[in-house]
Amino acid sequence: MENFRFKNTVEIIFGKDTDTLTGKETRKYSDKILLHYGGQTIKNIGLYDKIIKSLREEDINFIELAGVKPNPVLSLVKEGIEICRKNSIDFILAVGGGSVIDSAKAISIGALYDGDVWDFFTGKAKPKGALDIGVVLTVPAAGSESSVVTVISNEETQLKKGFHNSLVLPKFAILNPEITYTIDHFQTACGAADTIAHILERYFTPTPKADLTDRLCECAIRSVVDNVAIVMKNPEDYDARSELMWASTIAHNGILGTGRIEDWASHKLAHELSVLYGTTHGAALSVIFPAWMKYVYRHHVKRFFQFAVRVWNVDPCFGTQEEVAVKGIEKFEDFLKNLGLPVRLKELGIAEDADFAAMAEKELQWGLLGNFVKLNQDDIINIYKIAL
Amino acid sequence: MENFRFKNTVEIIFGKDTDTLTGKETRKYSDKILLHYGGQTIKNIGLYDKIIKSLREEDINFIELAGVKPNPVLSLVKEGIEICRKNSIDFILAVGGGSVIDSAKAISIGALYDGDVWDFFTGKAKPKGALDIGVVLTVPAAGSESSVVTVISNEETQLKKGFHNSLVLPKFAILNPEITYTIDHFQTACGAADTIAHILERYFTPTPKADLTDRLCECAIRSVVDNVAIVMKNPEDYDARSELMWASTIAHNGILGTGRIEDWASHKLAHELSVLYGTTHGAALSVIFPAWMKYVYRHHVKRFFQFAVRVWNVDPCFGTQEEVAVKGIEKFEDFLKNLGLPVRLKELGIAEDADFAAMAEKELQWGLLGNFVKLNQDDIINIYKIAL
Repeated sequence: MENFRFKNTVEIIFGKDTDTLTGKETRKYSDKILLHYGGQTIKNIGLYDKIIKSLREEDINFIELAGVKPNPVLSLVKEGIEICRKNSIDFILAVGGGSVIDSAKAISIGALYDGDVWDFFTGKAKPKGALDIGVVLTVPAAGSESSVVTVISNEETQLKKGFHNSLVLPKFAILNPEITYTIDHFQTACGAADTIAHILERYFTPTPKADLTDRLCECAIRSVVDNVAIVMKNPEDYDARSELMWASTIAHNGILGTGRIEDWASHKLAHELSVLYGTTHGAALSVIFPAWMKYVYRHHVKRFFQFAVRVWNVDPCFGTQEEVAVKGIEKFEDFLKNLGLPVRLKELGIAEDADFAAMAEKELQWGLLGNFVKLNQDDIINIYKIAL
Repeated sequence: MENFRFKNTVEIIFGKDTDTLTGKETRKYSDKILLHYGGQTIKNIGLYDKIIKSLREEDINFIELAGVKPNPVLSLVKEGIEICRKNSIDFILAVGGGSVIDSAKAISIGALYDGDVWDFFTGKAKPKGALDIGVVLTVPAAGSESSVVTVISNEETQLKKGFHNSLVLPKFAILNPEITYTIDHFQTACGAADTIAHILERYFTPTPKADLTDRLCECAIRSVVDNVAIVMKNPEDYDARSELMWASTIAHNGILGTGRIEDWASHKLAHELSVLYGTTHGAALSVIFPAWMKYVYRHHVKRFFQFAVRVWNVDPCFGTQEEVAVKGIEKFEDFLKNLGLPVRLKELGIAEDADFAAMAEKELQWGLLGNFVKLNQDDIINIYKIAL
């Protein structure tokens, strides 16, 4: 096991009707806030009205900044920073999924920094403080409500980059599974794929032994697999929606990565698809992860054997260790397909003529990708080709 | 799933040589502390000298209060409170296992309260503040380093009672698995039993559905079972000691209880054995838990079936659902026996003539015990009798 530090200070407020507590929880920190969200969705489901009512009941002044889109962009972050500065706002309430939360996180560190907030993403500067953040989560997927990460796309440079710092951890995150009833099949599937991907980035580790977190990872994936199947049949199954929501948080709050080196190569390959082709994050991961597995499994067949047996119930006596390992990858790919997710680049409209070499070059500008196997340009091109 | 709030602010600092960071971590909070510990053990293993050196390097003044024994007592807590008050101490460094940490927690709330600290345990008063606490953990078992609980024995009233409040959460906990190499077979076994018991108190829930935490509980137990076996053969296996140490923290940091009602009846029955007979906590749990299971399993056979299949690998087709359930309890009891732990009261020197009725009456003074099944006096007597 590797040495590690673990601390996660987010207060999770989970369950039915918890969104009605938004005003009260926010009021513990501020009475003048930026209300940050996407667009029409939270209005259509009645959440917007509930939030406004809850804020007004606590006499909280708010300025709205809507317009966050999937793969949140730097320009809107800068707009949010300006609003916070001009109005002396010290708290951001993010109502939405990972994109809204990531945008809020970037605003929170940018508002207290005189330079360009992008400096944090390129490593030119380190933040010394951040505005407080509260979250009302609408989409269980990114785990951003309890993670130390924000991922922002710079439209000018066509770069999608993550920034890690515990300063961006929200003060609280309200998770009401009922809010997720209206998430459609495709987005539910993308959320499940994203949750599983966050676990897999930790599961596939070069750390030789980390038994407890191996097992926690495996059973968290199993829970997502079982419960997303229930939700696909009955989108209003409260318990199954609850499991998906809580799993998405646990997948990314750091506990599943304790004592082990994480990978994160597949996320970087998937980010590039989102930047260039606008692919939904979960769908991009659904294409990349099986291809990555097919390319790297020979480096540690035993780990993929364990993945096959413990997560996908492959009979350990089915064949050689390698055959069992490959069967596990097949089962994972079948699971994604059955959810209606793409598993090939061509399903995203990306063909052989895509400039994989240029994509790889861009991804490698900060060094080799991943840790389970360290990927160079040829490796990345090969993985994209396997995904065709 | 039940509605819940979850927040755990303890910083875990885990791994080799992390005890050398004690001074630096403490200095973030204070330069005048109470150094609280048990007795000779930490001196014998060289830990005491390392801690003193580390504190001196950071110019931290300390007053020592040693003498914490298993089942920590109120009189020493009061002594600690006096020392803190007289010397304007604002930080307690607990070096030890659960007893030392629990004692430190009680001192931390008592020092800022004008009345009798026992008032918190009887529910007469609620603390408004607490001194900061840091921990260097020496025994993986109680999980107190990351829990909101302290359990103290009142020698005068012969009561052992727990008190829950997030105020007592330590600021940091240093966990170096190497420190645990010298823990002997019996104490290692007791620690594993305690860890598993903390998980079982959450696992056996009346909440109908809580799939993810069910699975997290099951795999955490599996990890303890596998790794304690390794440690019994090789006490200096770093990875296995690490797994036991991290599992003991995760078992009791609250995450395995999210979304579910917990039980805790067995702990109360076991506490009584410790108070009356001085039984080591883990050993008391080892006697009580199988007896509790045999008494209550018929209330929810399906859950014990799941416990048998998922935790103890009992073939689900072995027999009827009840036969499988019973086999699981047998396997759990065999596991405890094989660790060298007692599983019968007579092994503790307690026979039929013990006054189980009086014990039950005392335990019931604050209401029925447990939630999986609510136990009354007859139930408790029956469980003790099964344990004979």
